[in-house]
Amino acid sequence: MAGETVITVIGNLVDDPELRYTPSGAAVAKFRIASTPRAFDKETNQWKDGEALFLTCSVWRQYAENVAESLSRGTRVIVQGRLKQRSYETREGEKRTVYELDVEEVGPALRFSTAKLNRSGASGGGGGGGRSFGGGGGSSAGGSMPDDPWASAAPAGGGAGSGGFDEDPPF
Amino acid sequence: MAGETVITVIGNLVDDPELRYTPSGAAVAKFRIASTPRAFDKETNQWKDGEALFLTCSVWRQYAENVAESLSRGTRVIVQGRLKQRSYETREGEKRTVYELDVEEVGPALRFSTAKLNRSGASGGGGGGGRSFGGGGGSSAGGSMPDDPWASAAPAGGGAGSGGFDEDPPF
Amino acid sequence: MAGETVITVIGNLVDDPELRYTPSGAAVAKFRIASTPRAFDKETNQWKDGEALFLTCSVWRQYAENVAESLSRGTRVIVQGRLKQRSYETREGEKRTVYELDVEEVGPALRFSTAKLNRSGASGGGGGGGRSFGGGGGSSAGGSMPDDPWASAAPAGGGAGSGGFDEDPPF
Amino acid sequence: MAGETVITVIGNLVDDPELRYTPSGAAVAKFRIASTPRAFDKETNQWKDGEALFLTCSVWRQYAENVAESLSRGTRVIVQGRLKQRSYETREGEKRTVYELDVEEVGPALRFSTAKLNRSGASGGGGGGGRSFGGGGGSSAGGSMPDDPWASAAPAGGGAGSGGFDEDPPF
Repeated sequence: MAGETVITVIGNLVDDPELRYTPSGAAVAKFRIASTPRAFDKETNQWKDGEALFLTCSVWRQYAENVAESLSRGTRVIVQGRLKQRSYETREGEKRTVYELDVEEVGPALRFSTAKLNRSGASGGGGGGGRSFGGGGGSSAGGSMPDDPWASAAPAGGGAGSGGFDEDPPF
Repeated sequence: MAGETVITVIGNLVDDPELRYTPSGAAVAKFRIASTPRAFDKETNQWKDGEALFLTCSVWRQYAENVAESLSRGTRVIVQGRLKQRSYETREGEKRTVYELDVEEVGPALRFSTAKLNRSGASGGGGGGGRSFGGGGGSSAGGSMPDDPWASAAPAGGGAGSGGFDEDPPF
Repeated sequence: MAGETVITVIGNLVDDPELRYTPSGAAVAKFRIASTPRAFDKETNQWKDGEALFLTCSVWRQYAENVAESLSRGTRVIVQGRLKQRSYETREGEKRTVYELDVEEVGPALRFSTAKLNRSGASGGGGGGGRSFGGGGGSSAGGSMPDDPWASAAPAGGGAGSGGFDEDPPF
Repeated sequence: MAGETVITVIGNLVDDPELRYTPSGAAVAKFRIASTPRAFDKETNQWKDGEALFLTCSVWRQYAENVAESLSRGTRVIVQGRLKQRSYETREGEKRTVYELDVEEVGPALRFSTAKLNRSGASGGGGGGGRSFGGGGGSSAGGSMPDDPWASAAPAGGGAGSGGFDEDPPF
């Protein structure tokens, strides 16, 4: 895919990532981040939060399992991905549009934290349920998976902290 | 403002830019761009358009007048700006969210065109109506204007090609 | 090519672009930009220039001709491209490294200027010398050309304002 | 500072980060990354590495200590920072220019790894030597420190894995 809009966002996870598996067994994690700019208020001599930007991010395969295992609500992250627009209809038949980020790379920002890293896949255990996928690593192009676990009526299995998934899109 | 999400988008104007003036006389232009990625289809051996990303962009002061005078429907542009999220209520009381781009810099991409440039302000006439504003040039930080011409019930005066502006936000 | 470092730079052309042709007839333009950050000095209450960042940019085919015809010394531009590092040896045998930008998209920023656009190729005349190349437009991926006019001993023909090209790299 | 060239780079650490302290006690870490693009070779049906882009990155204060404690040679990272150019003279009196990245945010990419995060400063021990700095967190703008430990003749004290630092710049 050429001509995509690749952006980088610094933000904090609003909730724990949710991990799912497609019927064919591929892992996918979704997480939502809030990026909050700040302005310096000369009158109060203090920094003041601006309005936050929220974005839903999705990541696939082994990368998804690494994300689900490593990140949690509140984690400050750096995310690089393709900005995408997705249209859907509500149950009432109204058209809605959401913006999402197809993650190319993501990781915790070390501004307030240290990180202890472990090579994934090395220790047998993957993220969500002991399932381990070899691939993904080589594919920096990422791409669209043929089957969407969020669109499926009966999810193959929940992930860390995932609840119902009983809602319509958007995630 | 620190910590903003600055992104760059390549796209084409969906319509001519719309130019307005705030009650205090500041120009603001809005335009909508579509950014369309393409994938190479190995079966047909041809490039195929992906789903377009649409974004509404706003730009202020002299820059707005330059945009309104220079760009038109179909123009391929490069836009750099701050990705913002704005929430509002529909007349039916429903909450909606739109994503917009506060333009820092914008110009025509020269992939398919040549451009003849003129220093703005030099020839007395600005964009929309002979009004000329000196400022803006020095302010690469841009920023939020105190008064929003799109929020006002009675616009102070239309610009190039502006028609009704009788709708609520979003633009 | 995947995993490239695509960046966007706002800057001003240090000189007019130089246009050349490869032996096989492909146009290539090189131009150098200076991007100068500014800090607000609270003591003097004025903006003060920081140290400039200089980058050499190259662009190919019809795009090159459009650039050579449209941009000139001093033009403020927006450039998106792949940041590349190139190593070479001086005549004294020392190794040097330069950073360059393989342009994906470039155009004049409209902050201080208006632009009158003309579809390139439409009017018979291309940029440098009446030679017109159809391609390039579709190739947002750009890419490496097989022959480098800057490496050739006898350039196929100069372009707008190009003089000798008798120097070693880097451009 | 406005108008800076902020870029995001994905790469791998070429060596362990080097941590130093300025005479006034501020920590600064430097690390070098290699970003290697890849192209798909249709003949061999395999991915092939392109030429790597190398960049030296610097990060300050608590962030520096977090980096020194968390990252090591080979770690895949996401770095966002301001691209800067710095000129200096060699001992032979020749002028050289290097490009560097003033880090705004950095963290490990989770493509091949999981990360266990610890709030920094919480456990008393910082990175390099038990010294802990409260600040830094609020300053997303970063900025130039008044004293440069790499310029000083006698470094105030080495950090994790730092050896001699007896060389001229560049780092």
